[in-house]
This record gives sequence, structure tokens and C-alpha cells, in this order.
Amino acid sequence: MNMQPPVQIIILGASGDLTSRKLVPALARLSKGGTPFRLIGLSRRPMTDEAFRLQLGDALVGEELEAFQSMAERVHYVSGDVQSPEDMGRLASRLDQLPEGEKAGRLFYLSLRPDLFIPAVESLSECGLLRQTEPSDPWRRLVAEKPFGHDRISAQALNRALHDRLREDQIYRIDHYLAKDTVQNLFAFRFNNAIFEPLWNRQHVELVEITVAEELGVERGRAGYYDSVGALRDMLQNHMLQILALIAMEPPSSLDPEAIRDQKVGVLKALRLPHGGQGVRARYGPGEIQGRPLRGYLQEEGVPGDSTAETFVAVRAMIENWRWAGVPFLLRHGKRLPKRFTEVKVHFRVPPIQLFDRMEGGALQTLDDGTVCRLRPNLLTLSIQPREALSLSFGVKAPGSGQAMAPAELAFDYRERFGPSGATAYERLLQDAMQGDATLFLRTDEVEASWAFADALRATWEGQGTPMLEYPSGSWGPPEAEALFQGCEGAWSRG
Amino acid sequence: MNMQPPVQIIILGASGDLTSRKLVPALARLSKGGTPFRLIGLSRRPMTDEAFRLQLGDALVGEELEAFQSMAERVHYVSGDVQSPEDMGRLASRLDQLPEGEKAGRLFYLSLRPDLFIPAVESLSECGLLRQTEPSDPWRRLVAEKPFGHDRISAQALNRALHDRLREDQIYRIDHYLAKDTVQNLFAFRFNNAIFEPLWNRQHVELVEITVAEELGVERGRAGYYDSVGALRDMLQNHMLQILALIAMEPPSSLDPEAIRDQKVGVLKALRLPHGGQGVRARYGPGEIQGRPLRGYLQEEGVPGDSTAETFVAVRAMIENWRWAGVPFLLRHGKRLPKRFTEVKVHFRVPPIQLFDRMEGGALQTLDDGTVCRLRPNLLTLSIQPREALSLSFGVKAPGSGQAMAPAELAFDYRERFGPSGATAYERLLQDAMQGDATLFLRTDEVEASWAFADALRATWEGQGTPMLEYPSGSWGPPEAEALFQGCEGAWSRG
Repeated sequence: MNMQPPVQIIILGASGDLTSRKLVPALARLSKGGTPFRLIGLSRRPMTDEAFRLQLGDALVGEELEAFQSMAERVHYVSGDVQSPEDMGRLASRLDQLPEGEKAGRLFYLSLRPDLFIPAVESLSECGLLRQTEPSDPWRRLVAEKPFGHDRISAQALNRALHDRLREDQIYRIDHYLAKDTVQNLFAFRFNNAIFEPLWNRQHVELVEITVAEELGVERGRAGYYDSVGALRDMLQNHMLQILALIAMEPPSSLDPEAIRDQKVGVLKALRLPHGGQGVRARYGPGEIQGRPLRGYLQEEGVPGDSTAETFVAVRAMIENWRWAGVPFLLRHGKRLPKRFTEVKVHFRVPPIQLFDRMEGGALQTLDDGTVCRLRPNLLTLSIQPREALSLSFGVKAPGSGQAMAPAELAFDYRERFGPSGATAYERLLQDAMQGDATLFLRTDEVEASWAFADALRATWEGQGTPMLEYPSGSWGPPEAEALFQGCEGAWSRG
Repeated sequence: MNMQPPVQIIILGASGDLTSRKLVPALARLSKGGTPFRLIGLSRRPMTDEAFRLQLGDALVGEELEAFQSMAERVHYVSGDVQSPEDMGRLASRLDQLPEGEKAGRLFYLSLRPDLFIPAVESLSECGLLRQTEPSDPWRRLVAEKPFGHDRISAQALNRALHDRLREDQIYRIDHYLAKDTVQNLFAFRFNNAIFEPLWNRQHVELVEITVAEELGVERGRAGYYDSVGALRDMLQNHMLQILALIAMEPPSSLDPEAIRDQKVGVLKALRLPHGGQGVRARYGPGEIQGRPLRGYLQEEGVPGDSTAETFVAVRAMIENWRWAGVPFLLRHGKRLPKRFTEVKVHFRVPPIQLFDRMEGGALQTLDDGTVCRLRPNLLTLSIQPREALSLSFGVKAPGSGQAMAPAELAFDYRERFGPSGATAYERLLQDAMQGDATLFLRTDEVEASWAFADALRATWEGQGTPMLEYPSGSWGPPEAEALFQGCEGAWSRG
């Protein structure tokens, strides 16, 4: 790390919530951990370096405050408008005047409203701040927070605008889910171990279920933005499809970022709605969670009366490739569900013949048409939050002389094994971006392929007049979502 | 169970240790559990029913004593010599005079010295006690304890003698290991679950390791018998090959006892020593376990000075069939090892490419020829005793920004899940024999195939002059045993 040039991290939109809540704590920890950098904040409000330092420090406590205080003399502030080339010129002068000057690697962190993305990049570019052409040039990188557009067309326009001024390898698009240890472990779990890969295909997997359940409703102060996107765009299109890509991707030939992203994008491009599939959209009505009465989405402060945003989305998707053809991927995300959890469940097929035909203490499911479902003992659960855990359900012989099965579970808990989680997602992402490792960032084609799927679902909703259902707060969503499981496939996880 | 005829259980050799230590406690529990039967003990010593009841009761305490007292009036005694047809005639009269008389199903339990087996069966047969020819005849069954011969020739002779007087389906040969819940679970685990079978073959398994490690030396009063058999015949030929058969068998088409035993015998018949393989034989010398000084085998009371018995045996075996060709099965059994455990370890192959090349906190093994072994993260451990547990080792990403793996374990403990073990092995076996379920008993051809393997190993020892090694009590056996693991295959489990 000592061989790297000194680093300047420039946060554009430094007065925002993200800066004090996520970025500065992560940077303070990185600094304490020995990663050297200078931090320059920019926003419109005039402020001295000292005032900026005090403001950031005020939001911290304990170890993070201490760590921040040790780095405070390397924290600076420039006031300016990101749309103004003149202001950006002043930023450039200030950066050059700092001791490491223009030899520093520079990370421009766009913590801005989406409509300011392109203007900001344009003015940075006009001042030459993004120029990195010769191999000997110090690096210039741009970190962009979501959303990357609101559909495929707008994402393409955004990417084109970025590519006019930057090479793809200078662009770091954040999906902070990818930096969670447990999400990364989806990848490590599959490719570190020779025993899962032989099972990881249409021969052995019956269906894959991915849930992001939230107990929260729309967050205070965020209703306006949320209502303009809805659950599909806010969560499914990005975080959930990234999880799906890690679960379903082909093995990469190396850990090279491009090798990994090539395989992820391969899955996203093969993602389809099944014939006639339209999924379910819904929004929460009044209800209660754990005895606490809650108002409906339309009654939330800041939600327009003519809202068309969904707070719940569930869909049955297919991956049309050799490995997964015919295996449904069931995705579900909702707000105001009874509890918060993110998990992947891989349901394995039943054994080809069933020697043990009873489950201790459990009746076999019988369908309306009289079909008696066979026991499905094998289920792999990859819990991402709040628990970080793996469990593999299987059947053992119930003790005694009978031939009944009993359900059992092989379990592993990351926190029990490793203690409390170390680095936060932002700490990891900032460090990777400084080191030029793009593995955990989204590539142009990943973003566009994800939008293509979200757009296709939205188009069926609009084309087929899919109703906006309502579900009581504190319920598991509308009953129509249950019908996405077919025949003997089972039912949605309750976490 | 109420539809079954009343049952008479006749223990021949009722004054022996097995009767009071294992059979009567098991029968008392069965009786308390509602299984109806009458117990008739026979041995040479004259004794009244009452004296026999008191003697059995004296060996019991607590719940078992209570249960025995409730069944005591259905316990009887006949004195006689099993070799005397006249005495067996008196036994027959006594059995007929009991209320259920000759309509009872009769279970003759041979708890006798091996040399009395055939004479006892002959005299029982002469008195017509084993006759069951018409479908309407009440059943007559014989339960035989090990050993079944001391090699293949003698086992065949014993089986021929039995078959002269009984049909195979009247013969119940006990291997009490088979009645342990965890041993049965080897079977249930494989065939209840669709996820293990795809991995259960030469493509995915590198080797299988089976250990029965004992801390005990030769037991007091048993040295004479033990010295005449040795570790290979006492443990490997029967219990360990049964475990191997359950691990390696093809799936049966049903739970029918013959369907299961057909597949087990198929494995045993395919079992071979590899070319040049001779295994290791050894006996314990003086040493210590947990600070307790221990004498060597040759110094044990009752062991002859010219003993040739091994107390440790380890061998590398192959199963020459489509599923297992090329996969070594490493078997090891020894007395006076540092701890007692019985377990099976299935070592899975490494992933075809290795994306993560470091194990956190662990160096890669390097062979003498400079080969660096790859990480082997996947190991399934089936613990049979003293713990009854399953664990599956795998690699996860070590937390943080590196790409090192960390070892992790998915674990399951039967006792945590089901509470203390219920039925004992003998309870299960006696009940099965009464109900005519032969699944957990050994068939003629299984016994003979197991002996064929043991004989082949013994023949190489004698033919090649394999040395009798010595290992200190409390060590893991002679270093030569370690060499049965080759190249990067690893090393014997330490439990």
C-alpha cells in the first residue's frame, strides 16, 4: 500500500446525509487502519475547513470520533456548485495546492441528486479533473451512488454521458449490498467448495427463492423520492438481481474483476419473465406490527394522493441458459412485512425414489386436485440479514424402530464463528475503489441488463393492467403472491 | 402388535454376562413399553424360577429394575446342557406347558461359546423345537451372537450346519453396531436426501476414512478369547465392514430387508486389497493415557507369551465397482489409542480450479517432492460415538478485504436435536427379531463376503511376513499406518 500514490477523496455533495452517516465513519476507520488519504468535501454552503471538521465530528462518537480526530487535519472543504465549471476550477486549484498536489490519485465521490450526475461530470471534465490518459498519469476515478437511471433508456443515456468523459475502468458504480461479507460469501461458498457446484443446476435444484423483507415503511423525508421509484426500482432491480447473479452465475476462470462481472452479466442477460408471468405489485395499507398500529402508504407524509408506487413486488423469473432452464427464481420484496430479513433459499429436488415416506410430526401437503406432495427435505438457506448464517435442512431417521424421517438442520453462523462484523460495506467499497479493484462495483452492461428485466416486468404491469393490490401492514403481502409458488413447490419463507 | 402370537424368548446360556448386562435390561424396557413376551432362561446350573428372577433383579437398578419386577412372573428357568437332547426335551415340555404353549412364537437366543453353537442347534432341532414348515405354524427363530466363525471356511461350515436345520429367514445374526441409531442414520442420511447421492461417487469423493478407536485395552477376563481373534477379526471384519457397506452400497429399491441386504453384500463382494496392499498390524506396548501408566498387551493378564494377536489394524481397501473404482477406503481400528471414537470421514475432491488459494491461519501442505497440496475444504464427518453428530466442513471467505478462505463447519448433533438416546441397540434388535424384521441382522452371504476380505488381508500378512509392529499405549498407532495416506490425501483423523 505504501507504493501507491497519496490519495485525495473528494466528496461532491458533502453536506448530505450519506457523508456523515456512512462515508465519514467508514473513512475514519480506514484512516485508523492505516490507509492514507486526504478528504475534501464540496457543497454549496460556504464553510471553513475548521467548520466542516467540527460538523463531521459532531456526528460521530466513540472510536470513530477518535479516529476522525486523528485525521482531521487532512480534512478540507471547498464551497461550490457542481454545475459551475468556475467553481470546479477553484476545486482543482485547491486540490493542486495541497502537498501531494496533482500527483495524488483522486477519487470523486458523487453523493448527489440523480439529475446532478451528468452536469457534475461535465464540469469536472471541463476543468481537466478527470483526465487520465497516459499510463504514467495518476489515477482519476468516479464513484457513483445509485440510482443509475430509472429504466434502461435513461441508464444508457447516463452511461453514454459518463463514457464521453471517462473510460469504463474509471467508473465505480456502488451497490453497497455487494460489499456485505455475506453477499460476497454467496460467491465464496459456491466456488471454494467442490460439493455444492455439482448440485447447483436444473438437475438438482427445484427452485430458488430470494426475499428482502423490511419491517420499515417509507422512511421519513424519503417519501417523495421513494414514490418516484417504488419497490421494483428501489430494491429488486439492483440489490436483488445482484444477489441472483451471484447465486446463478457460471464459475469465473479467475478472481479478475472482469472475469467475475462477465459471468454475472451472462446471467442477467438470460433472465426472463415466464410466459404470461406478470408478478404481483401491491402497497401497504393500515395495519399493525407487534401491536403497534401503522398507517397505510397513501397516508404517509409526503406521499402524493395519486401515487402509483408499489411497496411490494414479487415475481417468478426464469434464467434461460443451460444450467437453469426450467428452474423458477422467485423474488419478493416488501415494506411493512412482519419482520426484517434478507435470505436466499435453494430448494432441492426430491430423491428419485422415496424410501421413507413419513415426516415425524408433519402431514404431507395435499393439493386441491388430490395430489399428495412428496417430502422435500433438502433446503439450503443463505441468510444475509439480520443473521448472517447458512443452514442446510435434511432428513434423518426419527429415533426408535419406525421408518419415519425427522427434519434436521446443519447450521453455521458467521458471527459465532468470526465475532462481530468488522469492516462496514462502505469501508470495503472505499478501500477497493482507492486500490482500483472494481469487483464489487457494477459494470455498464450489468446495470443495463438489470434494467431490461425491470422494464419488462413494468411493461407487463402496464400492458396487462396488473392491479395494484393492497396488503395490511404487518401481513406477508397480498395472497396473490402465494400463487407464484405452484403445485408442490411449497410457500414463501417466513424468515 | 396385538395380532401377533404370544412370544417366548429362550436364552440359552442365561447365566452369562450378556444376559444380565444387555439382554434383560433391554427386555425389561421392551416389556414396559408394551411388547408382550415370556422369558425362559437356560443354563447348566440348577436354579428355581424364583432364584433366577432374584439373580436377574440383583443386576438392575432404577427404572429397569421396576420394569423387570412387573414382568418377573413371566420369567422362568430351566437347567440343562444345550448339548443334551434329553435336557432340550425337558425344555420343550416346559415351554409347551406354559399358558401360550406351542402356539407361541419362539425366539432362541444363543448366548453361548462359539463351539457350542452347532451342538445347541442340533439338540434344539432334534427335539423339534426349530420346526416351522407350514405357513400356519407359529414361528421359530434363532438369534446368534458373533463370532460367526473365525474365517470364511469356518463361517461357511457354521452356516451349512444352521441351514441343515433352519431356513435362512429363521436365522438372525446379530451385529449390534447395526442397531445404533447413528449407524442406521448412515443409511437414512444417504437415501432420504437427494443432495448427497449426486456427490457420493468417484467423481466427487477422494477417499473415505473409517475409524474405530478405543481407549481401552483388552478387557479383564476376555484376554484369552481376544488373543485368539485379534483386532481384524474382532472389529474390522464385522462392525467396520458393516459401516463400510452402509456408506458405499447402491440405493436399494425399497426398505425390504432383502433389497437392503442385496445391496450391502454387493459392496462387500467388490471389496479388494489394492495391488501390493498389506495394511498394518500392531500391538500396544507400555505407555500412558492422560497420565495413567499402562502396561503393554503382552504383559496383560491372560495373554499368552507367544501371542500373535494384533490390537491395531489399518488397511487401505478398494471397492471395485462402477461407483467407487479408484477411491480408497481407509480403515483403522486400535486399542489403547488416545481417545475413544467411531467415525466415518468422507473426503471430497478439490474444486477443479482454485480461485481462493490461501487458508486463513493455515499453511498449505508441501510434500517431500516439492508438490504443494491444494486446499481440501470439504469433509463430511459422520460421528457414531461417543458423539452422535454430523458435520460438513467447507470454506467461507475470511472477513475483510482479502481473498483468503476460512474453514467453517455446518454441524448437527443428534442428542441436541432428539434428547438422550432412547432404545438401546439390544432393545431394537430383540424387538425386530420378535417382529420378524431381519433388516439389521446379517445374512449368510454378508458374513461370508466379510470373511473373504479379512482372510485376504491375513493371507498377505502371512505370505509377505508383514511385521507385527508395536506402538506405545496412548499413541495413535505405529507411524507406518500414516503411510496409508498417500500424496496430498491428508492424514488420519484424531477424532
